Amino acid sequence: MKKEFQNKIKKSLSIQYRAKKIIPGMNQLLSKRPDMFSYGVWPGYYKKSIGTYVWDLDNNKYLDMSISGIGASILGYSNSYVDKNVINSIKMGVVSSLNCREEVDLAEKLIKMHPWSDQARFAKSGGEAIAMAIRVARAKTKKEVIAFCGYHGWHDWYLAANIGKDNLKGHLLEGLSSAGVPRGLKNTSFPFRFNEISDLKKILEKNKNNIAAIIMEPMRSFYPKKNFLQQVRKLANKYNAVLIFDEITSGFRFCPGGAHLKFRVNPDMAVFGKALGNGYPISCILGKKKFMQSFEETFISSTAWTERTGAVAACSMIDFYLKKKVHLKINKNGKILKNGIEKIAKKNNINISFFGYDAIIVFIFNYKNANQIKALFIQLMMQEKILTSNVIFLNYAQDIFIIKKYLKSLNKVFNKLAFYINSKIKLNKYLYGKESSSGFKRIN
Amino acid sequence: MKKEFQNKIKKSLSIQYRAKKIIPGMNQLLSKRPDMFSYGVWPGYYKKSIGTYVWDLDNNKYLDMSISGIGASILGYSNSYVDKNVINSIKMGVVSSLNCREEVDLAEKLIKMHPWSDQARFAKSGGEAIAMAIRVARAKTKKEVIAFCGYHGWHDWYLAANIGKDNLKGHLLEGLSSAGVPRGLKNTSFPFRFNEISDLKKILEKNKNNIAAIIMEPMRSFYPKKNFLQQVRKLANKYNAVLIFDEITSGFRFCPGGAHLKFRVNPDMAVFGKALGNGYPISCILGKKKFMQSFEETFISSTAWTERTGAVAACSMIDFYLKKKVHLKINKNGKILKNGIEKIAKKNNINISFFGYDAIIVFIFNYKNANQIKALFIQLMMQEKILTSNVIFLNYAQDIFIIKKYLKSLNKVFNKLAFYINSKIKLNKYLYGKESSSGFKRIN
Repeated sequence: MKKEFQNKIKKSLSIQYRAKKIIPGMNQLLSKRPDMFSYGVWPGYYKKSIGTYVWDLDNNKYLDMSISGIGASILGYSNSYVDKNVINSIKMGVVSSLNCREEVDLAEKLIKMHPWSDQARFAKSGGEAIAMAIRVARAKTKKEVIAFCGYHGWHDWYLAANIGKDNLKGHLLEGLSSAGVPRGLKNTSFPFRFNEISDLKKILEKNKNNIAAIIMEPMRSFYPKKNFLQQVRKLANKYNAVLIFDEITSGFRFCPGGAHLKFRVNPDMAVFGKALGNGYPISCILGKKKFMQSFEETFISSTAWTERTGAVAACSMIDFYLKKKVHLKINKNGKILKNGIEKIAKKNNINISFFGYDAIIVFIFNYKNANQIKALFIQLMMQEKILTSNVIFLNYAQDIFIIKKYLKSLNKVFNKLAFYINSKIKLNKYLYGKESSSGFKRIN
Repeated sequence: MKKEFQNKIKKSLSIQYRAKKIIPGMNQLLSKRPDMFSYGVWPGYYKKSIGTYVWDLDNNKYLDMSISGIGASILGYSNSYVDKNVINSIKMGVVSSLNCREEVDLAEKLIKMHPWSDQARFAKSGGEAIAMAIRVARAKTKKEVIAFCGYHGWHDWYLAANIGKDNLKGHLLEGLSSAGVPRGLKNTSFPFRFNEISDLKKILEKNKNNIAAIIMEPMRSFYPKKNFLQQVRKLANKYNAVLIFDEITSGFRFCPGGAHLKFRVNPDMAVFGKALGNGYPISCILGKKKFMQSFEETFISSTAWTERTGAVAACSMIDFYLKKKVHLKINKNGKILKNGIEKIAKKNNINISFFGYDAIIVFIFNYKNANQIKALFIQLMMQEKILTSNVIFLNYAQDIFIIKKYLKSLNKVFNKLAFYINSKIKLNKYLYGKESSSGFKRIN
């Protein structure tokens, strides 16, 4: 059985052996590593992706109900409107010694969507855009300490929190290694927990003359408690700190633009990535002029950021999003999906808990051997021709028939899974691959 | 005359006023700011770019003999082979929850080209790739100090050299502001001058137990003196420092791959960007396994880096480059161009000096009012329908007829320029726009 299973994904597995040898970590993103799912089972590499379907290197077609490009593909893969415009821009030249006008158009669209903002700058990846915002906040305030909540990438300013000991214990993301981050950055950044205003107050009081910025995801695993974001806003004002919302994951999930628009709390700067380009690399720092003008007091510049397709893709994504009211569909379907999963789990006596929100569903298996159960779940769903795990990013290409198809397979698979969990044979005997590795733990 | 001139580029100028308001610094890259050329004269924005021609927003067609996308477009704009492959990849989906196989292909191509290397990782912009290499070097060595030579982007580790005073005085690039860089990074990076081995020795001796890496551009404005790079290599070994070559600008200019292949000195890691994707955003860190494996000891990960078009563009660029022996053409034409400029300058009594190399020509006007002369030169060449300045990046789309056309116009313009320089009327009376700003000074 195992042999038969792996034979069907032969090419997809064999490229993984090649990749492991010549790319440290196998690929460029932890969340797309096959071992985060089930090494030996998860196909890992794709040939084609359209709508919410994916073809692996062996030409197996799957319904992709997993991470939708870890949130990058909010409209679904190969959205024809976005891709048509990108292809046209390629025919007109993606680069020259001059600048492309689409970045000006994009700035205008984003500012219009966020009336508190005045200016925008662009980059290609999310982490670098956050690092730019941090630099600008420090340049503006002439202060250094950053209070943060949530996950903000790989850069030194952030991992500095983990120097000496694991200060991210209990935070998103626990256990991130700070190896290679200069020790001189010790005590320049401190994490606070979501919905724990006293955490933040302590950091601010302890560093009261040196707080450059408060940066947070306005929403991750839980909804903000009443007034939590408002209190953060007030504290930022009180301590003359720049309030930055990291909307890389939450942006365009609740409404057009940042989640903060829904929660009615305005930051001084906001950072977007992922969904913004529907898969094409583009990130944005949006802000009030008073803060953004400090871009000109320091040096922040890169050739790659001037490339055209990112800006074209983002303009097109926004136009399509607004026209189709994408947020309504993904939230409506997400709710149906979440309720369905909950019901099916109960019916089959599978003990799971939910985090996240309707447009990004996260559940965990409440078992000691959760990583084995997750791997088995993935394996059984793959036999249904569905790629999925315990994290599902909703996208516009998923319609109600797809949701129903998923739930039907889920019922079948949870039924089997319950049987395996309750059987006396050790669960890993059923696994064709490795159990899921957690890498770092997402616990908020 | 001024009015007539500016009227022809009305749309291209008017978007600049809009951009200035909503994008701090007007755009994403210092080198593409119109004021670096001549504000009020330089069109700044393009609609179409094909081969070595550019159309501004007013549909004026220019021969672009300037920065070729600041080196990003080494094959010329809209190279049909690269673009065809990119468009095909778009039709197959640029993103999914899985990885694209082209990044594995690209790693193999680059490793084959650089036999000293074993592994590769990818990112989107050059500066972030350099920051990744620095992180990995520090993680590997458990040391912190960086000795560097040349320009390496906007990140904290680099600008840290300028904390307190302008330590980049006399270096590339003088005057970069370190505003917003944490003071705790003071004395973590020190610049040495190219071809001045004693500079480097002093830094190494002073920080002998704490040198993590030596990073440099193997070639920028001058050729390395005999044994200079070999001496750097030996010193890196002696002090157990990781030797990193920044090939973002020099890569693919002398030969397929890094300039170090021509100079026959191997680094431990090398970083590529710009030319690698012929305009599409992709950067690479190449290295020996011994060092690259430290990628897994620290946390370096980003969603945008998994996007497909960058890897497809880079694979295609390399295939085309090797087939057409692009380095031979750009160096041959560069030599003809440089000799031609030198001759025409002499004939017209224009006093200029050259830096750079055949594939990237840099000259300066040896006059007190060099920034006015540069602006007037740009303005006069634009009247010949040529975009140019004192920096010319060669590309494959420029053939010998284009070089000759440029030289013919240059002769006409240098003749006029000599007249203006020698006339008693102040030069700025002839300018339709502002004189060129230097921003930061490139002097080494």
